[in-house]
Amino acid sequence: MKIAELDTPALIIDLDIFERNLQRVADYAKQHHLRLRPHTKTHKSPEVARRQLELGAAGLTVAKIGEAEVLMDKLPPTDMLVAFPVFGVRKLERLKGLAAKTPVTVALDSLAAARELEGVDASILIEIDVGLGRVGVTPAEALDLAREVRKIPGLRFRGITFYPGHIKDQNAEALTRLSEDMSRTVESFRKAGLSPELVSGGSTPTLFHSHEIDGLNEIRPGTYVFNDLNTIASGACVLADCAASVLVTVVSTPRANTAIVDGGSKTFSSDRLSGSTDVTFGRVVEVPGTRFHKMNEEHGFFDTAKSEREFHTGEKVRIIPNHVCVAVNLHETVYGVRGEDVERSWKVEGRGRLQ
Amino acid sequence: MKIAELDTPALIIDLDIFERNLQRVADYAKQHHLRLRPHTKTHKSPEVARRQLELGAAGLTVAKIGEAEVLMDKLPPTDMLVAFPVFGVRKLERLKGLAAKTPVTVALDSLAAARELEGVDASILIEIDVGLGRVGVTPAEALDLAREVRKIPGLRFRGITFYPGHIKDQNAEALTRLSEDMSRTVESFRKAGLSPELVSGGSTPTLFHSHEIDGLNEIRPGTYVFNDLNTIASGACVLADCAASVLVTVVSTPRANTAIVDGGSKTFSSDRLSGSTDVTFGRVVEVPGTRFHKMNEEHGFFDTAKSEREFHTGEKVRIIPNHVCVAVNLHETVYGVRGEDVERSWKVEGRGRLQ
Repeated sequence: MKIAELDTPALIIDLDIFERNLQRVADYAKQHHLRLRPHTKTHKSPEVARRQLELGAAGLTVAKIGEAEVLMDKLPPTDMLVAFPVFGVRKLERLKGLAAKTPVTVALDSLAAARELEGVDASILIEIDVGLGRVGVTPAEALDLAREVRKIPGLRFRGITFYPGHIKDQNAEALTRLSEDMSRTVESFRKAGLSPELVSGGSTPTLFHSHEIDGLNEIRPGTYVFNDLNTIASGACVLADCAASVLVTVVSTPRANTAIVDGGSKTFSSDRLSGSTDVTFGRVVEVPGTRFHKMNEEHGFFDTAKSEREFHTGEKVRIIPNHVCVAVNLHETVYGVRGEDVERSWKVEGRGRLQ
Repeated sequence: MKIAELDTPALIIDLDIFERNLQRVADYAKQHHLRLRPHTKTHKSPEVARRQLELGAAGLTVAKIGEAEVLMDKLPPTDMLVAFPVFGVRKLERLKGLAAKTPVTVALDSLAAARELEGVDASILIEIDVGLGRVGVTPAEALDLAREVRKIPGLRFRGITFYPGHIKDQNAEALTRLSEDMSRTVESFRKAGLSPELVSGGSTPTLFHSHEIDGLNEIRPGTYVFNDLNTIASGACVLADCAASVLVTVVSTPRANTAIVDGGSKTFSSDRLSGSTDVTFGRVVEVPGTRFHKMNEEHGFFDTAKSEREFHTGEKVRIIPNHVCVAVNLHETVYGVRGEDVERSWKVEGRGRLQ
């Protein structure tokens, strides 16, 4: 089948770019002796996870137990990181079920979250806030927490984790500071007799600088498999590295300078372009001067005043989304293409596993 | 089961409010002799659609063929409006399959879209832009299009459709203008011998003013079943009418004035609050002074500086979303509750039917 024959909207992945993205990060990790534990939130698919493992990934990362369950239904046991505290009786039962199938590590940042896991066979990474201001505690608090974790039956302190999502690719100073902070943190743990087996960090934006961070021995990038406009904005990739786009059909050209396509916030998500005050929702590949400036749930609106050409109803164009992770989560099926040919498709099996 | 026992994040529907919302609109439509053809995009569920039909709905509205297919697998034939032009060979085949099961009407606004449907057994509504600037043509263009539609084999011109989403509840002047415009439009069609059987309009914001619009005889509200913060902002409902909320768990309280819950843009969508420059993503029911100001994919961030009380890790709270239609689309299952009891659950079966 040709791309043009696909019903729209359809999420398509350029397999040449995708495979190059997978290989590049696998090579980078090997070159710098870093464990690669990709975050599967971007693709939510056992098929992609299998390829990551075949290329040398040391394990996988998930945001929720439901995603891990979907992966473990199809894949052999691997080193599985649940990068989120787990609360609640039923979830803990499911976590135990998961731990019976595969080695499980949980990331957390509070004693309450650690105590909740009592009796689960799990390794623990303690989350440190390195400046993003999201989850995570200070290094001193993390050390106290590590001591407490060791007393809880079933749990093993395995290391520390952090997410430097606030550092953009270009900021060498921030990276140096992070490296110095991390060096001090690891040293403080060593002195306390709690030498961390894993120092797990990295993000897609800082990905190719991970080897510059002292002590870091594991990376967990997610977005790198597909990339998107936000990844470009962060400096971590260029347009030619964007493997994912959404094929849409122009369904109406009701007025001058206006074209309307059959994809809106239920197709792309309404995530804005990061670091931009201008509100746009994607790049039209074939006609990049087009401004994709508005969405309803199922409509996307192009301002075509600066488009390189006119649009006509019924034609199909591709749009690279701002944020591919939330866009993939809205699609049932992904179509892998090479040139103009649809080579294969796979299901986003972990989609909507909310818990 | 009690609400507190649900795994989070969980989308819960207060059944008392939901049933009252359904009844109120059914009563309003009956009172004013308006056909009620609810838009199912909000709930995407055959179960809810069945209740709407039982309460007297004359048909249903969908945004895409996939949603109609899901409904028609479970429901008896009904007057089905596909409120979107259909392009593409495979979609047209599916539309024919749908038309073999149930009477189908398609809304469109171009001759290209009408010609695409040649040979499909379908009624046609022509979309008029009444000021929103979305899809739709001028009344004069619509009349020309109606004439052309009658020449296309298989198609029957059935009426006109419009969406007054730009008119908020309070704007009596805009409603009067719309009524006058519509009166003139219908008259122009009558004079041309193309008297529209259906004049289909209405939106949730203008819902209870539909009887004031001259000529209008069908309404297609969607959001009214659940309502949300945007519906409140439009003036069409009050807080007590909001049936949907998302139950989340506080997973971290890492710093002063900060609580982090297990729901982010993959749970709520990143839709902003309409008509507000302040960026917030929902109302915390139990602690409404809380500012839900930031999201990552799976994290929601509360600024608790003005909260009525502190939060503790492991506790569960409910959040009313900005825009319930896009939030429902992110959930596999909906939990119907009465008081603190989970009475039943249903699947969002039409979720992610993108095409």
